[in-house]
Amino acid sequence: MDEIEYMRHAIRLARQGCGWVNPNPLVGAVIVKDGKIIGQGCHRKCGELHAERDALANCQTSTAGATLYVTLEPCCHYGRTPPCTQAIIESGISRVVVGSSDPNPLAAGKGIGILRSHGIEVIENVAGDECGKLNESFFHYIQNRTPYVVMKYAMTMDGKIATRTGESQWITSSAARHRVHEDRHRYSAIMVGAGTVLTDDPMLTCRLENSRNPLRIICDTSLRTPLQAKIVTTTDTAPTLIATAITDTNRHRPYLDAGCEVMVLPQKDYHIDLNSLMQRLGEKQVDSILLEGGGTLNWSALQSGIVNKVQTYIAPKLFGGSGKTPVEGIGVDDLEEAFLLGKPVITWVGEDILLESEVIQCLQES
Amino acid sequence: MDEIEYMRHAIRLARQGCGWVNPNPLVGAVIVKDGKIIGQGCHRKCGELHAERDALANCQTSTAGATLYVTLEPCCHYGRTPPCTQAIIESGISRVVVGSSDPNPLAAGKGIGILRSHGIEVIENVAGDECGKLNESFFHYIQNRTPYVVMKYAMTMDGKIATRTGESQWITSSAARHRVHEDRHRYSAIMVGAGTVLTDDPMLTCRLENSRNPLRIICDTSLRTPLQAKIVTTTDTAPTLIATAITDTNRHRPYLDAGCEVMVLPQKDYHIDLNSLMQRLGEKQVDSILLEGGGTLNWSALQSGIVNKVQTYIAPKLFGGSGKTPVEGIGVDDLEEAFLLGKPVITWVGEDILLESEVIQCLQES
Repeated sequence: MDEIEYMRHAIRLARQGCGWVNPNPLVGAVIVKDGKIIGQGCHRKCGELHAERDALANCQTSTAGATLYVTLEPCCHYGRTPPCTQAIIESGISRVVVGSSDPNPLAAGKGIGILRSHGIEVIENVAGDECGKLNESFFHYIQNRTPYVVMKYAMTMDGKIATRTGESQWITSSAARHRVHEDRHRYSAIMVGAGTVLTDDPMLTCRLENSRNPLRIICDTSLRTPLQAKIVTTTDTAPTLIATAITDTNRHRPYLDAGCEVMVLPQKDYHIDLNSLMQRLGEKQVDSILLEGGGTLNWSALQSGIVNKVQTYIAPKLFGGSGKTPVEGIGVDDLEEAFLLGKPVITWVGEDILLESEVIQCLQES
Repeated sequence: MDEIEYMRHAIRLARQGCGWVNPNPLVGAVIVKDGKIIGQGCHRKCGELHAERDALANCQTSTAGATLYVTLEPCCHYGRTPPCTQAIIESGISRVVVGSSDPNPLAAGKGIGILRSHGIEVIENVAGDECGKLNESFFHYIQNRTPYVVMKYAMTMDGKIATRTGESQWITSSAARHRVHEDRHRYSAIMVGAGTVLTDDPMLTCRLENSRNPLRIICDTSLRTPLQAKIVTTTDTAPTLIATAITDTNRHRPYLDAGCEVMVLPQKDYHIDLNSLMQRLGEKQVDSILLEGGGTLNWSALQSGIVNKVQTYIAPKLFGGSGKTPVEGIGVDDLEEAFLLGKPVITWVGEDILLESEVIQCLQES
């Protein structure tokens, strides 16, 4: 195997932590000596060993003179665990190959600098793009301290998310719905509007085996969520956070009694201020959100500039009629005001198509 | 080159007739002797030489004992030209490799049979699928005697064909619009509703060099097309056909005087009967139509079961709001009633995505 292949192997290892490491990054590590892998590991779960230490712990033979492949620059600070740079230096490893560098501008290059100052050869940016993609939500979170928001919707080829009578379950195939559940596991939280709770009464949990349920966030400006809604009555299964502009604590009480968290936010244009919400969620270490809203919340989120990525699932069918569309609200007047998206990544998911784009122009509400 | 490569070369030659041969098929032919191409040709234009005769005419050396590669089964009947089978037999060609067979069930296999009865070896179905795709509109037309209808629209990633204020020029990039003009050249006719004429006053011509303008068909149930509309005042540039349910010949007169053709059709659900229109157009040898309608006409066309293929251009941008969508009309009530499309072929066109699907379930209006 060459350097790129060892790094790709480390990327595959890193993915094992998907959904479990948040708000930490996914990291994988491979230790190679005399052309043989003598140890490998990953960061499996927040609070557990970092990938480098996990790989070192798995080595059966001496690591003196070995090469370490690691997808992210090793940390050099005391966090939940002591710095990985220290473990690497102590191991006698003589060469470190790094994928992406630390996204924290205050820390970038420091870990690598420490290794070099101890005479260890360091090669940087090997499969750097692939290693970066692994952690796009973490990179955003570390740099902004607000969650990375992925707006997801499923529509027909004529742009409908429901028939004119409101039927929407299910537009896409089971393969696409499975993929959405993988993302519910992957991202820390799921967010919908009170309208979706009133219409669909969804559980918003992840229905895969060996998975984690996301924090369920309901944007509910005027506290319309029914107390008998599943997301209120199932807080023993998954946590629920209701974000509201209602300040009357008497009205919060029944939700709190049911085990929900209630977060009071300022109001803006008749809607809770989504930028404040993102700030507050960032402080709570919510690093990523899958936004499964309807057209109204999707529009507010775009307008607030909080959306980082758009996932468009397209089912090869046509509804016609005046059914709901993925983004509604007021909408833009002129073509020039359109929200521009980056070049979509196209993926087949069963018989459906998934288009994933970064939001490259997201107007802040003035 | 092997057999497939010779056939693909013949396919490339065939494409030279694109837009010019209708209602004939695109056909290419290559003549090979001793591993060398000694002649090649195609059907260039309706009324001109068939591909086989064009290739034979281009041979500088004797064709005795040569192999002919031809994308479609040679004809064996007297049409505008004498049968190609006769020319092949006379040429001394000893082996014929055929792409797709004649789609006319009454003729299929006959040309091949005649060649074999003259001792010529015939190989069938070489790159058959590719040769078939070359002529999907011709195959449909020959089998149904109605035009092959391609419904085309351009929308944003949130399913809008216009902003809420009606702006729609242009949603897609110039590359996508260029591609649409190629299709206006390729298909025999373009069809829109009177609403599009009233809103956009389009020319509906093909703006490419060395191109042909399509027949412009306006579905205008109650004759609302203004006499000063471009499609009425420019009949010296391209022919215009107005399909209406108005029988009063006094109301036809000004359109006829302007050079338009007026076709009177029965009415069905407050709209001209599109199935009757397709029958009548088929009789006029209109083999293919690019339907560039708005949501209302698109819905009527789907409901009538006349749409064969859907072309969805998707621009990576979002409008939000309640702008128009590609297919409107009444729409389906239940998910089970949705019009199902075949697996889309995905093509990048500049920064936009083109999804092309066959309509695999198209309910006939009851």
